[in-house]
Amino acid sequence: MIPGLLTTAIQPDQRPNVVLFIVDDLGWQDLSIPLHTEPTEFNKRYQTPHLAELAKNSMIYTRAYSASPVCTPTRTSIMTGKNPARTHISYWTLQGDTSANDPKTKPPAWQMEGLLPKDGPFLPQILSDYGYKTIHVGKAHFGAIGKYAADPKAIGFQVNIAGHAAGGPGSFYGTHNFSTSLRQGKPSEPSVWDIPGLEEFHGKDIYLTEALTQKACDVIRESKGDGKPFFMNFAPYAVHAPIMANKRYLSKYAGLDQREAAYATMIESYDAAIGDLVSTLQATGEYDNTVFIFTSDNGGLSVHSRAGKDDRNAPLRGGKGSIYDGGIRIPLIVHRPGKPAGRTDNRVVSMDLFPSILGYAGINSVDSVDGRRIEVEGDRPLLFHMPHFWGVNAPGIEPFTSLIWGRYKLTYTHRDLGYQLYDLQSDIGEQKNIIGSASRDLKIKMIGAMSRELQRMNAQMPISKETGEPIPMPRTQWSSN
Amino acid sequence: MIPGLLTTAIQPDQRPNVVLFIVDDLGWQDLSIPLHTEPTEFNKRYQTPHLAELAKNSMIYTRAYSASPVCTPTRTSIMTGKNPARTHISYWTLQGDTSANDPKTKPPAWQMEGLLPKDGPFLPQILSDYGYKTIHVGKAHFGAIGKYAADPKAIGFQVNIAGHAAGGPGSFYGTHNFSTSLRQGKPSEPSVWDIPGLEEFHGKDIYLTEALTQKACDVIRESKGDGKPFFMNFAPYAVHAPIMANKRYLSKYAGLDQREAAYATMIESYDAAIGDLVSTLQATGEYDNTVFIFTSDNGGLSVHSRAGKDDRNAPLRGGKGSIYDGGIRIPLIVHRPGKPAGRTDNRVVSMDLFPSILGYAGINSVDSVDGRRIEVEGDRPLLFHMPHFWGVNAPGIEPFTSLIWGRYKLTYTHRDLGYQLYDLQSDIGEQKNIIGSASRDLKIKMIGAMSRELQRMNAQMPISKETGEPIPMPRTQWSSN
Repeated sequence: MIPGLLTTAIQPDQRPNVVLFIVDDLGWQDLSIPLHTEPTEFNKRYQTPHLAELAKNSMIYTRAYSASPVCTPTRTSIMTGKNPARTHISYWTLQGDTSANDPKTKPPAWQMEGLLPKDGPFLPQILSDYGYKTIHVGKAHFGAIGKYAADPKAIGFQVNIAGHAAGGPGSFYGTHNFSTSLRQGKPSEPSVWDIPGLEEFHGKDIYLTEALTQKACDVIRESKGDGKPFFMNFAPYAVHAPIMANKRYLSKYAGLDQREAAYATMIESYDAAIGDLVSTLQATGEYDNTVFIFTSDNGGLSVHSRAGKDDRNAPLRGGKGSIYDGGIRIPLIVHRPGKPAGRTDNRVVSMDLFPSILGYAGINSVDSVDGRRIEVEGDRPLLFHMPHFWGVNAPGIEPFTSLIWGRYKLTYTHRDLGYQLYDLQSDIGEQKNIIGSASRDLKIKMIGAMSRELQRMNAQMPISKETGEPIPMPRTQWSSN
Repeated sequence: MIPGLLTTAIQPDQRPNVVLFIVDDLGWQDLSIPLHTEPTEFNKRYQTPHLAELAKNSMIYTRAYSASPVCTPTRTSIMTGKNPARTHISYWTLQGDTSANDPKTKPPAWQMEGLLPKDGPFLPQILSDYGYKTIHVGKAHFGAIGKYAADPKAIGFQVNIAGHAAGGPGSFYGTHNFSTSLRQGKPSEPSVWDIPGLEEFHGKDIYLTEALTQKACDVIRESKGDGKPFFMNFAPYAVHAPIMANKRYLSKYAGLDQREAAYATMIESYDAAIGDLVSTLQATGEYDNTVFIFTSDNGGLSVHSRAGKDDRNAPLRGGKGSIYDGGIRIPLIVHRPGKPAGRTDNRVVSMDLFPSILGYAGINSVDSVDGRRIEVEGDRPLLFHMPHFWGVNAPGIEPFTSLIWGRYKLTYTHRDLGYQLYDLQSDIGEQKNIIGSASRDLKIKMIGAMSRELQRMNAQMPISKETGEPIPMPRTQWSSN
């Protein structure tokens, strides 16, 4: 029906491969490379030498954000270039409404199926159309069980290794067949969390990240003769819960609390995967023609499943699922052969990867619906919107909207219709709420921008349990009549 | 329910008055001041000396656009700062669906009531909240008959002179009581087009523009003692059809076709109104504290009701209701006492007036949902979307979407799913469609941006009569699978 306007065949000769290495729940501090002004306790604790080697010739983004403090919204934002506030995939998916019961609010009628055809075009679909081999490895979590995007092939991945609807693994151990039942020591019965398609490793002493890496390296080697570039979305399930040690590395972290030591081995496991992938790319001669992107899908776990107070992302406050930067600030390191390396504080967000990756592939998309290329500088308001309760009772874990613009971060909490304003430049830990002392102009600017962005995206507000009506949009005095 | 966050009383002492003088259906050439590179035949024909005097100390915008090629969408875009593609007020309102019957498409379920509370906050409402006296004079056309915004007071005007649901006058003559029935020489019976509230002028030899001006000047004088600034939306119904001469000026245009001569007197009448308003502002001592904005709500009439071929906006092609720049390019002249004057080719659009006027009033809104201050430079994609047929059978009058970005204009015609691409820099008259020869990158850039803007705004596409399905969004090859 549409004339085939742009059917020009594209010569893949000069197109680079792209590896998007997206660790799950990896916090801003969960690597040995310092992203803050000085190395922190965590940077010193965690051992990621292969990443550090890669980063030497990479651009290190010190102010990268995930689109959401939970996973499906961020992952789907990368696949679409759209803010979760717009797609209404505003929470993590599995089956029905996964939102926790909040004392004050009910979630809106969000898109709990995950990605649907209307949300396209999808990143792997476009790359596939343009001659790329598109490979998914590991955690997918793009669509709910039995729904359109449960299988990553629905959105354009030609190869799928171990990806399905669930966002966490039953177990990280091959000896558990990566299943919940064997981890829990019960008779084997199927669980939605059991990893599909890795039967060759069942019963073996292998960590899930290692099994996925072996499969990924196999595909890279096999692809050598294809005569086309590849896009690989490598998502190692780790360092998502359950926190389970990779025993190969455990002795190195003997001084730590047992759970924190296990966490450190999960980190070292992803680093080993980077090492293996890089070696394979070098062995196949593809390394100098491969863009390698290292990132996460949301901030690190803090009080939930971790030892310590609410400080696992320090100097940031809070963690996954929360209103604070600990929930949304993430590492981003991009290795582009022959391109400038260094550090940048240009503020970028997950959906920026959509136009950026298309740009690396030579597909001139300029920008996406809500993202722009990460190389583009200049400030813009960034909106984070989660009208859901993540279920952990800890400070800052509640339904909210945040807007970051310039040095400031405004948060609107849906339970109490309250505002918090932080100066991230002088107060990265969000300790001092300055909403009471801020100038009228600053408040109008920030609240006005939040309201505009929500309207632009046709965002859904949660429902007040008290009134049965949607929580009001944030508004300034002049917009309240 | 919302905490009164920004209730700080605002001192009105330094706030300027704002007059928004918005002529109806005034084309880009319908003034004596040249907006193209050289004075045109039309600039020489039309006599607007008072506007020329004002313009000496004004900023003249040579590349201003209306949000739509018809009136209600543009007028409501100014009141909201939102693109008609977003509000779904995508056509002119009166009663029910006013769209003409198109051979190929049906209109979408557009917002035929006009403005509704959800579309707020409204410009006059905000200004009123901040201590302005808000005055509407003349054509309103913000809401359909009997609906929310039929009376301009609903959206925050404190004073309403002669504004209601209809977008055109029954007659321009006081001797006709400004009514349809007397114009048509029939026994008097009410019509929706009859102008309300000007009974004091009934039976008198006065032109509608003159009556409105007298009333506006009265309000300006009365407001002198109020101790508050005013915002006046002055919309003289003219130069909208019916084309009726102001006989006071007719002898000057004796050499012209009768209809064109009448049109010229309508133009001279608005110019006289500017002269009277300026004199009154000077007499009351308010002139040096008044921002005076002169503009239109869409391009000028061309084949419809005018003498001549489709050339009434030359060098532009087409006119009101059409896909061409003749339908959307409009004059914009802004007089700000004490501010720099001159000419600028910064491309601006009607909804930019929302944040601009708030800015003049010292209300720091920065930008609106779809507009930005007209002083801000830098290119951006501008979307024009009218999924309706205006009913006149002339080239380019059909349902369409256009996007202007950089030097290019892309138009997507909904009947045939066809694309037209023009280089406005070298081809202001849109004579040479270059879609066939444009580079793949340019086509992807323009079609991609159009698709993104439509998605961002949650725009409605018309329905194909053949398939019963919505017309597909514009798309490039990569987005078609």
